[in-house]
Amino acid sequence: NHEQQQRARAGRAETMSQPAVNGVSCVGKVLTLDNMNPNVRKVEYAVRGPIVQRAMQIERELKQGVKKPFTEVIKANIGDAHAMGQKPITFFRQVLALCSYPELLEDNNFPEDAKKRAQRILDSCGGHSIGAYSTSQGIECVRQDVARYIERRDGGIPSNPDNIYLSTGASDAIVTILKLLTCGEGHTRTGVMIPIPQYPLYSATVADQGAVQISYYLDEDRCWSLDVQELRRALDAAKQHCNPRVLCIINPGNPTGQVQSRQCIEDVIRFAKEEHLFLMADEVYQDNVYAEGSKFHSFKKVLFDMGPEYSSTVEMASFHSTSKCYMGECGFRGGYMEVINMDPEVKAQLTKLVSVRLCPPVPGQALLDLVVNPPQPDEPSYTSFMKERTDVLAALAEKARLTEEIFNTVPGITCNPVQGAMYTFPRITLPQKAIIKAKEGQEPDMFYCMRLLEEKGICLVPGSGFGQKEGTFHFRMTILPPTDKLKIVLERICEFHQWFTQEFS
Amino acid sequence: NHEQQQRARAGRAETMSQPAVNGVSCVGKVLTLDNMNPNVRKVEYAVRGPIVQRAMQIERELKQGVKKPFTEVIKANIGDAHAMGQKPITFFRQVLALCSYPELLEDNNFPEDAKKRAQRILDSCGGHSIGAYSTSQGIECVRQDVARYIERRDGGIPSNPDNIYLSTGASDAIVTILKLLTCGEGHTRTGVMIPIPQYPLYSATVADQGAVQISYYLDEDRCWSLDVQELRRALDAAKQHCNPRVLCIINPGNPTGQVQSRQCIEDVIRFAKEEHLFLMADEVYQDNVYAEGSKFHSFKKVLFDMGPEYSSTVEMASFHSTSKCYMGECGFRGGYMEVINMDPEVKAQLTKLVSVRLCPPVPGQALLDLVVNPPQPDEPSYTSFMKERTDVLAALAEKARLTEEIFNTVPGITCNPVQGAMYTFPRITLPQKAIIKAKEGQEPDMFYCMRLLEEKGICLVPGSGFGQKEGTFHFRMTILPPTDKLKIVLERICEFHQWFTQEFS
Repeated sequence: NHEQQQRARAGRAETMSQPAVNGVSCVGKVLTLDNMNPNVRKVEYAVRGPIVQRAMQIERELKQGVKKPFTEVIKANIGDAHAMGQKPITFFRQVLALCSYPELLEDNNFPEDAKKRAQRILDSCGGHSIGAYSTSQGIECVRQDVARYIERRDGGIPSNPDNIYLSTGASDAIVTILKLLTCGEGHTRTGVMIPIPQYPLYSATVADQGAVQISYYLDEDRCWSLDVQELRRALDAAKQHCNPRVLCIINPGNPTGQVQSRQCIEDVIRFAKEEHLFLMADEVYQDNVYAEGSKFHSFKKVLFDMGPEYSSTVEMASFHSTSKCYMGECGFRGGYMEVINMDPEVKAQLTKLVSVRLCPPVPGQALLDLVVNPPQPDEPSYTSFMKERTDVLAALAEKARLTEEIFNTVPGITCNPVQGAMYTFPRITLPQKAIIKAKEGQEPDMFYCMRLLEEKGICLVPGSGFGQKEGTFHFRMTILPPTDKLKIVLERICEFHQWFTQEFS
Repeated sequence: NHEQQQRARAGRAETMSQPAVNGVSCVGKVLTLDNMNPNVRKVEYAVRGPIVQRAMQIERELKQGVKKPFTEVIKANIGDAHAMGQKPITFFRQVLALCSYPELLEDNNFPEDAKKRAQRILDSCGGHSIGAYSTSQGIECVRQDVARYIERRDGGIPSNPDNIYLSTGASDAIVTILKLLTCGEGHTRTGVMIPIPQYPLYSATVADQGAVQISYYLDEDRCWSLDVQELRRALDAAKQHCNPRVLCIINPGNPTGQVQSRQCIEDVIRFAKEEHLFLMADEVYQDNVYAEGSKFHSFKKVLFDMGPEYSSTVEMASFHSTSKCYMGECGFRGGYMEVINMDPEVKAQLTKLVSVRLCPPVPGQALLDLVVNPPQPDEPSYTSFMKERTDVLAALAEKARLTEEIFNTVPGITCNPVQGAMYTFPRITLPQKAIIKAKEGQEPDMFYCMRLLEEKGICLVPGSGFGQKEGTFHFRMTILPPTDKLKIVLERICEFHQWFTQEFS
């Protein structure tokens, strides 16, 4: 039925897009749903999908005075810290103000270390202005600071600033690497292994590039852990119809919140080497680790600890961002990647490719420099910086704990510990009647989330937007709201879940 | 010979990229020049190509104390105003500092209108912070201000904020629209008409998307004007091997500096309608018009003046940027596009596509808001703002005049008037011996520009990077250096040209 409709549309489109004959203009649009880039049509990005459209509509209705069972919409669909009331780190914003308006360098209200940082950034900009283009790979002194940050993080394993590429958020760099790796047609088309559940940037980019998605499933029963046997299953099946070349890992996990063990990372690296896969390590939540016994291990550190057989061969890109961790500066679109063991000729192509877009936003580069080079113990801003940082991370740890605890009190909601990152991805049991009712038009978890939005004013993302094992249902919720508000959100969801279960029983 | 080499490489690559057998790891890289995305390999972007690499190397050599016939490299390869010493507009940077560090709203040294603007921007941000994500299409109040700006510019023709998409510089929006329009295979592949000479973002994106470039030539003898007969010639030829769907126009021209007449724009619109083409109007230099008798006419204004037969049918996107005009804020990567007559279903797809990258950089959005909504006559910053703006534009007009005048004094350099934009694209006569010598390894104009760089420390972009009529040679130079320095640059180039002509005669 759906296919018939598609064919009917396509037929119509053919007629409509006939070129002009003898100067008589055509009917119909040049660009239609039927003749646009078919890969773009396949793109899906649930984090900002139809549920968010509806949430914004409800917000407008509230403004217009329409009566609802709530007074505001709480958008827990996205990891947007400042939007949830988190305050920016004072030191970072001081430096950014100084960079924006260098006349403030004369202002005695700004601390000396902030001025020093700002001056250093300005000195590395063309014409001493963050309004000049930087080199396409990013400002050299920022790349040097990133390399030193990585060296400190990884216990002294060397990092070369030439291998650092600054980017417009991590998304930009992830898309660029996937683009480099995509080639072939039909059975030789590049296959990209991505976790399920995944952050939908991956599935969207794979669709956009016309690459082949290879889904490997995380094990919900073992706290969303990754099992190499599952990687092998997925890979072997995929070899029948594509050319698997890339393995994407998200650690700490989004939307699943797990933190990978060192052993697991070793197994993954060994697998990547054996199977000749390019590793993409999405490590944007590297500072967001809360659970006791959990620790962030960078893929690079583990790779180098495994010895030269691995550290000199396995090709890898690791991604980081200014949008998450304790600073949550999403709007600045800052980020970087480090490429390891990349063929120098390919690196030259990468550098050429990024040059077409000129450069990442310079304010985001400046911010990134502060993240990787924060105030030091002997500097005036150190104490207040550390306090702000610690407060945010401690509150997040508390919220992670609360979330798991409260959700698990409700029959029909099962929630793994939020070991890291910024989200919970609980499993929900939906009554059969609701599943049947939803099937008329939408995924059952979308039906659930839409009802939650209408009844309680809480905006979540249905699990189907991230992928989930067939027959299971989930939602993603960020744990970012302030503790008091988070408690209300959690309670309202629990109430709703009980009501929903009754309503459709 | 070249093909043989390519085949040999490909053969080698096939052997090397065999997957692991029985866990024995492979030799060779996963990702090589031979098995990477072939479209990316075809991408070329001369503005930051090999000549800039060499210029940066020379800068390092100078720092290390290597003796050269000059003491600094002057990079006239790119339109980067601040890097050339142009000062940022004070009002803009005051507002950006206030947005970055809202504590400054209490500071009496900031003018009230700057505070008002900053407060308005902050109030439209999530959590009142430019560190929050905006909606993917861009902050609503900024889009409203853009729409009002367009209405004022176009004498009241309505502009709908829903048709405005903010972007990461204009480049981002141009790539997005070209991506939407690309489809088909072989003879049905999307063809994109671009001017020659062109700004190489266009050829690079066409290559990257695997679309087909359709070159139409601007008429150098008539001040780089565009002739519809030439559009028709190019289109008719292209119909044999692709599906022409898009017509790109750059006005004022980059690299060519012409400003299109109203008549010409009408002709182009008529042609686009007759031939059922989507119009892309790159109007990022809309405030950079210097020549007497030249005036910027927006494609939208002309389209609407032509009556509903056109204004309700011709599909178009127009692009603007914060990087050029009088502000030259390249580093902030601000920009927007307005889409006109776009199919609503396609617009929904466009909105979905841009949501994958979350949002354009918010500081760039804030800056754009100031550009489209500058201080008004009754506001305290008005006088100083207008003075700064006028000074920059007057200096540019003077530099445009000087450039034409000085170049045309030298036999072998022919320079059209710089009616607008920020570049000159003079034609150079190269002696036959130089052409032969260059042919050994590079384009003759690259040979010329490389020699100029080595002898005089001036970095230009060879005309071959933009495209030029076979057998003609050019270079692109920005007119942005301060007047005194520009004079020196022009004189050195003239000297060099005379030396070069003699050397190879």
